[in-house]
Amino acid sequence: MSRLNFGLIGAGRIGRIHAENLVRHVPKANLETVVDLSLEAAERCAADFQIPSFSCDFEKILNNKLIDAVVICSGTPTHTDLIIGAASAGKHIFCEKPIALDLQQIDKAIQAVSDKQVKLQVGFNRRFDPSFRQVRDLVAAGKIGEPHIVRLTSRDPKPPSAEYVKASGGIFLDMTIHDFDMCRFLVADEVEELYATGTTLIDQAIGEAGDLDTALVTLRYGSGTLGTIDNSRRAVYGYDQRVEVFGSEGQVVVGNNTAHQAVYSNAQGVHGPLPLYFFLERYQESYIAEMNSFIEAVVNDSSTPVDGTDGRKAVVMGLAAWKSHSVNQPVIIDYDQ
Amino acid sequence: MSRLNFGLIGAGRIGRIHAENLVRHVPKANLETVVDLSLEAAERCAADFQIPSFSCDFEKILNNKLIDAVVICSGTPTHTDLIIGAASAGKHIFCEKPIALDLQQIDKAIQAVSDKQVKLQVGFNRRFDPSFRQVRDLVAAGKIGEPHIVRLTSRDPKPPSAEYVKASGGIFLDMTIHDFDMCRFLVADEVEELYATGTTLIDQAIGEAGDLDTALVTLRYGSGTLGTIDNSRRAVYGYDQRVEVFGSEGQVVVGNNTAHQAVYSNAQGVHGPLPLYFFLERYQESYIAEMNSFIEAVVNDSSTPVDGTDGRKAVVMGLAAWKSHSVNQPVIIDYDQ
Amino acid sequence: MSRLNFGLIGAGRIGRIHAENLVRHVPKANLETVVDLSLEAAERCAADFQIPSFSCDFEKILNNKLIDAVVICSGTPTHTDLIIGAASAGKHIFCEKPIALDLQQIDKAIQAVSDKQVKLQVGFNRRFDPSFRQVRDLVAAGKIGEPHIVRLTSRDPKPPSAEYVKASGGIFLDMTIHDFDMCRFLVADEVEELYATGTTLIDQAIGEAGDLDTALVTLRYGSGTLGTIDNSRRAVYGYDQRVEVFGSEGQVVVGNNTAHQAVYSNAQGVHGPLPLYFFLERYQESYIAEMNSFIEAVVNDSSTPVDGTDGRKAVVMGLAAWKSHSVNQPVIIDYDQ
Amino acid sequence: MSRLNFGLIGAGRIGRIHAENLVRHVPKANLETVVDLSLEAAERCAADFQIPSFSCDFEKILNNKLIDAVVICSGTPTHTDLIIGAASAGKHIFCEKPIALDLQQIDKAIQAVSDKQVKLQVGFNRRFDPSFRQVRDLVAAGKIGEPHIVRLTSRDPKPPSAEYVKASGGIFLDMTIHDFDMCRFLVADEVEELYATGTTLIDQAIGEAGDLDTALVTLRYGSGTLGTIDNSRRAVYGYDQRVEVFGSEGQVVVGNNTAHQAVYSNAQGVHGPLPLYFFLERYQESYIAEMNSFIEAVVNDSSTPVDGTDGRKAVVMGLAAWKSHSVNQPVIIDYDQ
Repeated sequence: MSRLNFGLIGAGRIGRIHAENLVRHVPKANLETVVDLSLEAAERCAADFQIPSFSCDFEKILNNKLIDAVVICSGTPTHTDLIIGAASAGKHIFCEKPIALDLQQIDKAIQAVSDKQVKLQVGFNRRFDPSFRQVRDLVAAGKIGEPHIVRLTSRDPKPPSAEYVKASGGIFLDMTIHDFDMCRFLVADEVEELYATGTTLIDQAIGEAGDLDTALVTLRYGSGTLGTIDNSRRAVYGYDQRVEVFGSEGQVVVGNNTAHQAVYSNAQGVHGPLPLYFFLERYQESYIAEMNSFIEAVVNDSSTPVDGTDGRKAVVMGLAAWKSHSVNQPVIIDYDQ
Repeated sequence: MSRLNFGLIGAGRIGRIHAENLVRHVPKANLETVVDLSLEAAERCAADFQIPSFSCDFEKILNNKLIDAVVICSGTPTHTDLIIGAASAGKHIFCEKPIALDLQQIDKAIQAVSDKQVKLQVGFNRRFDPSFRQVRDLVAAGKIGEPHIVRLTSRDPKPPSAEYVKASGGIFLDMTIHDFDMCRFLVADEVEELYATGTTLIDQAIGEAGDLDTALVTLRYGSGTLGTIDNSRRAVYGYDQRVEVFGSEGQVVVGNNTAHQAVYSNAQGVHGPLPLYFFLERYQESYIAEMNSFIEAVVNDSSTPVDGTDGRKAVVMGLAAWKSHSVNQPVIIDYDQ
Repeated sequence: MSRLNFGLIGAGRIGRIHAENLVRHVPKANLETVVDLSLEAAERCAADFQIPSFSCDFEKILNNKLIDAVVICSGTPTHTDLIIGAASAGKHIFCEKPIALDLQQIDKAIQAVSDKQVKLQVGFNRRFDPSFRQVRDLVAAGKIGEPHIVRLTSRDPKPPSAEYVKASGGIFLDMTIHDFDMCRFLVADEVEELYATGTTLIDQAIGEAGDLDTALVTLRYGSGTLGTIDNSRRAVYGYDQRVEVFGSEGQVVVGNNTAHQAVYSNAQGVHGPLPLYFFLERYQESYIAEMNSFIEAVVNDSSTPVDGTDGRKAVVMGLAAWKSHSVNQPVIIDYDQ
Repeated sequence: MSRLNFGLIGAGRIGRIHAENLVRHVPKANLETVVDLSLEAAERCAADFQIPSFSCDFEKILNNKLIDAVVICSGTPTHTDLIIGAASAGKHIFCEKPIALDLQQIDKAIQAVSDKQVKLQVGFNRRFDPSFRQVRDLVAAGKIGEPHIVRLTSRDPKPPSAEYVKASGGIFLDMTIHDFDMCRFLVADEVEELYATGTTLIDQAIGEAGDLDTALVTLRYGSGTLGTIDNSRRAVYGYDQRVEVFGSEGQVVVGNNTAHQAVYSNAQGVHGPLPLYFFLERYQESYIAEMNSFIEAVVNDSSTPVDGTDGRKAVVMGLAAWKSHSVNQPVIIDYDQ
């Protein structure tokens, strides 16, 4: 099989991760070009990863007949226009999360994708982590019976800047959104109601920017399964990413990954390694695996494992969480809004 | 030092645990007599644990000048009258949880204890578990900094009968009440608001009796700390008793205890032992330790480690949880009601 | 059933452990009397554990018709005479390890026990530890198939005094002897050849006393199974007691026990509790269980779980280890010497 | 920096691992050509990993001026001639272990490398595993004080064919050789004496080929540190690769790596994942890291982390183990032979 030709849009942190993976670790991909509003960023990215061309003009990718697929890693506000443009140009689309913060924009993008019959995959990379996938597989195989309680812990090692926070959609749309997708992924059921509460215990600047840094969300699925998500913007011991699914016949639990397995005992205690520091380290494999899955969907003309509807539902949940928090009451989630 | 003379009231399951411990494992105790409404139960208990006398008449204990302290293990509805009677007779009191399901009755009992200057300890035995105590000590020593998130998991290996459930006060007053006490014990702060949700996923008879078998409670402490409790009446893998306290400087986590440490690997996987089956096995040490602490408080005329106010607060929280569940909204907890 | 009446011989450290267990934790035992060469030690032991009588005259126990069984905890050189005396008096015998350091003395004691048809159990308490028993049961049930490799680690938290060492028979007869018994217990096979090597890395005084403080023993069983034992007189992190049995169908591994389960994470690492400090803490349960098994054997007139032959074989192995060490060559073990 | 140009010699299993890594995961390498006695194997390797040229003539690489370094993955008997040829051609050399089974041949190769001032690195990849490196670093930093006991477990998931075994040098030169290198790596000391014992418990054909499938080696280092290595050709639960270093101030232990972290509990037990299957999975990172280190040594003109002397010492130890096994006695290791 020949390789799929990619154009990368956005050469920031996550863009560079995808660039490195497409060039080095995804044999079926060929990264042809990179575009960024900053020509300098595009050029540096091209140089660092041996990408043949670069530009600061998005149109160049859309008009480039060689390009089969785009990877959208630019700022969230640009996502839906880029999706619509790429779809019109007949290009398949991998788009970072969230698709957008506005549901009507998301709907337009999904419509364009549907009309043009291109593939769209949203960057919920955690679904491709081997441990979480193992949980999902065990649950799907009925190994825990009927799911009763889902518990997700997701804590960052350090808070983002207040600057970042302002444009992010806030904790529920920026951080919890991964957990909202995960809670749907692990058990094949939709959350019907949620109650979100939170506070600012870490950085007052985050509170002043109108956001939270510590949050708890209670979930009720359609089948009656209950769930809980806890988030913190700063765990001093590193990136804390754990899930549990408990059911009528058993439980599956995933703990943290570490850089090594050496355990040191001295007179003071038994000391193990910290969790891997942050998402780059923790989810390295998953970023590669999601790209392989996207290529497979394109090549086989099958549905992508995280489509536009999945991307939209996580945003609906994030918006519901903000509403719940503002009224301090549980809210029914309206996916049809 | 001479031993403290005890009279045991109630020779049911938990009464027999305390009988065995007082006779065999608490050297400073002398169990003089046991009383139960069922003379047969009292007699069997006396025979099994070499207790010198038995009776079916509670008054006998109260009038017995030899008795220094009573251990109340009879049905919850009898607790407050027995406390008041024992206090009037100048006897120190160890009372199983909950003190009562009615706050006014609890207040009368606390008043009697205060008036008669006797000691009252409530049977929140989990506080005396070495692992949970270690968590409390680390938190109190500032090792995790400011507490941000408390997570408690408490799941039974098998559901009680619908019969039992009817008289129990329901899940929040019968089962979660231990967690309500634990969440106060682990961090030195009071819960100001809670949101309780639950459902019936295990046994419809429990639902028909007006109770829940699966529940989630979200907590907000005065300082802003958030908490979550999850309960199930049936974990097929055994009694699941875990706590976590996460804070600005670290985290402490307690997993389950097992009967042995042997881990077996074969071609199918790496297989470890199940958690200890239920509270008798899991909290064996804590039942002994709480009795030693009670004796120490009596002997030193110091305050008991779990007093009437502690017992009352857990009931207030349980009642608040039922209220929250009935209106499906978070409720502010009024400890002064 | 009526209780078995015991007389305790020797009120030192291990004697006091058995005294406390017989009085408090073994309901079927009645500890009638304690004897020690030091009347003061006997009196203190009697006072501490409510033993009705005490003495400094061993004959008193042997002549006491009330006594059904003796527990021999006196110095090793006194063991065989006491066993022979007790057997002649028709008393059952629980004797601490080693029976003796001299095989002919051991043979005389075993003969006396056999002639008088009394029970003899040797104090290899580790066989009664729930984790090691679980290993043995899994091996016996064929869960690991044919045993291929046995690994035992046994390290003390602190070295004994050079004084103690001189009378102890040295590391292989004082410390490794437990592992020699364990390696026979875990797999139902005898060691035919061993190679013992050792050195003095911890305390030069131990070396000057002619002993070792660090040792490795390689084992070859009759069936071809290989084994290794490593010993140290000082593990700064506490009493390290681990076993592994590896076979054609799997492996069983036992790690250390801890005082609690609390795991603390901070910016420096993930910190768990140390192993329990020493044998008193680690093997508490096993000392009680071995006594229950002894009583059961007496009451049911069945064979004891660790008999004189077991006690003798461990000594033969210890002597072989010293021989191997002195010639620095593997030696064939002659159990018939 | 420009890339280092490589030629690969040998396109078998390990050769293909290095090919894939050099092409995909080692950005500073450029794999120019591959040579194998089988033209077909060379061609397939070139096609699979986009290597520009291939051949069945070793001379082509040696005469190719573009090539800076060779990676020798051909059969062991060819190693020393290829090293000498490559050195003469001024090429740096990465050679798979063992250099040779004959010490005089090894000495000639080392001499050639020294004369021609090229770099030689031997493929003891396990030194580059993050966990073992962490052990080494902690030991080197004095965290465990003086090393007292080293324990290595190294077991394959399935035995090689009797065919393979015949040409391999036997278990001590084919399999234990990795452990011989590891025991030198972990503590900065040389083994002076060893005792090797072994047997055939898994596959009689291995025994008939004159080899062992289960082995134990006891080590004595110059400083008095003791060590033990246990090997099996078949652990049904997967590749078992563990090390422990115990010393005067503590211990470091490394357990196995797994493909995921999901732990499943049901009514039968708590079930974790198996160790990674074999060396390809377990040591994936280490194969990349060793190549990066080799390139670094070449570029910086510094010494390689595993040089010819290291490669020779492991062979001396393997030969000593065979000698010890044949006489069933410990042997002093003569590194100067």
